Amino acid sequence: MSSHPKISYQGEPGAFSEQAARAYFGKSCTPVARETFNDIFEDVVKRRSLFAIVPIENSLHGSVHQNFDLLWKYRVHIVGEIKLRIKMNLLALPGVTTKNVRAVYSHPQALGQCEKFLRSLKHVSVTPFYDTAGAAKMIANERRYDAAAIASLQAAADYGLKVLHAGIESDHRNFTRFLVIGKKLVKPKKNAKTSIIFTTKNIPGALFKCLSVFALRNINLLKIESRPVIGSPWEYLFYLDIEGDARERERVNALNHLQELTSYFKNLGSYETGIIVNPK
Amino acid sequence: MSSHPKISYQGEPGAFSEQAARAYFGKSCTPVARETFNDIFEDVVKRRSLFAIVPIENSLHGSVHQNFDLLWKYRVHIVGEIKLRIKMNLLALPGVTTKNVRAVYSHPQALGQCEKFLRSLKHVSVTPFYDTAGAAKMIANERRYDAAAIASLQAAADYGLKVLHAGIESDHRNFTRFLVIGKKLVKPKKNAKTSIIFTTKNIPGALFKCLSVFALRNINLLKIESRPVIGSPWEYLFYLDIEGDARERERVNALNHLQELTSYFKNLGSYETGIIVNPK
Repeated sequence: MSSHPKISYQGEPGAFSEQAARAYFGKSCTPVARETFNDIFEDVVKRRSLFAIVPIENSLHGSVHQNFDLLWKYRVHIVGEIKLRIKMNLLALPGVTTKNVRAVYSHPQALGQCEKFLRSLKHVSVTPFYDTAGAAKMIANERRYDAAAIASLQAAADYGLKVLHAGIESDHRNFTRFLVIGKKLVKPKKNAKTSIIFTTKNIPGALFKCLSVFALRNINLLKIESRPVIGSPWEYLFYLDIEGDARERERVNALNHLQELTSYFKNLGSYETGIIVNPK
Repeated sequence: MSSHPKISYQGEPGAFSEQAARAYFGKSCTPVARETFNDIFEDVVKRRSLFAIVPIENSLHGSVHQNFDLLWKYRVHIVGEIKLRIKMNLLALPGVTTKNVRAVYSHPQALGQCEKFLRSLKHVSVTPFYDTAGAAKMIANERRYDAAAIASLQAAADYGLKVLHAGIESDHRNFTRFLVIGKKLVKPKKNAKTSIIFTTKNIPGALFKCLSVFALRNINLLKIESRPVIGSPWEYLFYLDIEGDARERERVNALNHLQELTSYFKNLGSYETGIIVNPK
């Protein structure tokens, strides 16, 4: 591995994803800003970047569903995980006060996380933007003295904005879980977890039977997520995180057993459980 | 029930939710346009409207998570269901051609449903808007000759826009499932289903045990959806649809059994399974 590996992330410089990349890989990595989540998966598949960092779930606002779909679609593996403490801030041009603000721009997830704060502002329109740092950049570039962005402190520093209100998220237990994706499976050294995707066969009690392969072997479920199968109304794809490495004997047996009951199965990989970090 | 009951929906006139209200209640109902999903739940709780119509899931783009959270938060019941065939269209001012379009506005769910089509357009920015019909209204009111909206044919008719491209959704098996919510439980006459919400106790195999109360009684699961518990990182709330009426003996037993295993439980109600309708 190069000492300055390229790590693709979605968003503008100053995005939470960039902070997560630096927190996971250290200062010497080379974060590569990309416009869409599709782009960062393509970067990994086409080896333009060694890894990509993918937000998958926020403790307040829920899952980033598009990325579950992309994990299913692309030939990639999960190689790591990190949980980033998220602090949201209302940012505006120097000289602007909260009273001047008529419009607030940010990513829909960030707007959702600051819903209570936003409701406390009077006569303010709330407009979704493709990216938190992108909203900060727009405010700065277009000299919008009537507007504010919700973004990170890093974005304030990057685009010369002032912090009108810090820590405006509805609940301060606010973390985003990021997955690190790469081309190859890795072998976790400790605290392993494994992510899989499957669809159940159309049999009675299908999901119950699928979960039994883990329950009967005392394998802990860490997360379950259901997504509709695109184009098959009311059929579902399940995303499951289980404790342990898929190479361990009992897991091998459980996953073989599971495949007797599923119409589709994909092992996304085993990796070390991420820890919670504060952005630097 | 009044012969012109008020039915709250989120969006502007011409919204898919308004079409769903008319398809479910017939032409004599009085749809009431409201700005947010919170508003329509409040309308029901405060008896300003008899019912509200709530989009809960789209067959292409997935669940409307905010509404799962509101079903948990508000003291309402589900009294009915309808599945509306969704056709998305690119709408612009008369005289505008696709080549003139530099920006496309619509609700994020609609943009998601037309992702393939949007990628085929060159040099076009895609901007989320609070509502499909609202985007059409904005294009019309602001005389935006450089932009287009993605919305219903009804919205084209309501705001005097031209259809540049019809049926632009990625997959034509496109339906949105709406729930009808009211203050009181109803008793379905046929094809009953029941929706519940619960959190599991923190015990090994918790979800497996919860699902066993249905599997052991041969009660079919129709849908399972997990949502993080706000402010409790990595804890989950489950939304479950089961076949049948919660008043039937076996369902009563299963739901009592379930409550031995859950730390929170709410019966959202039993109602008739919705049919698929085409907008009029």
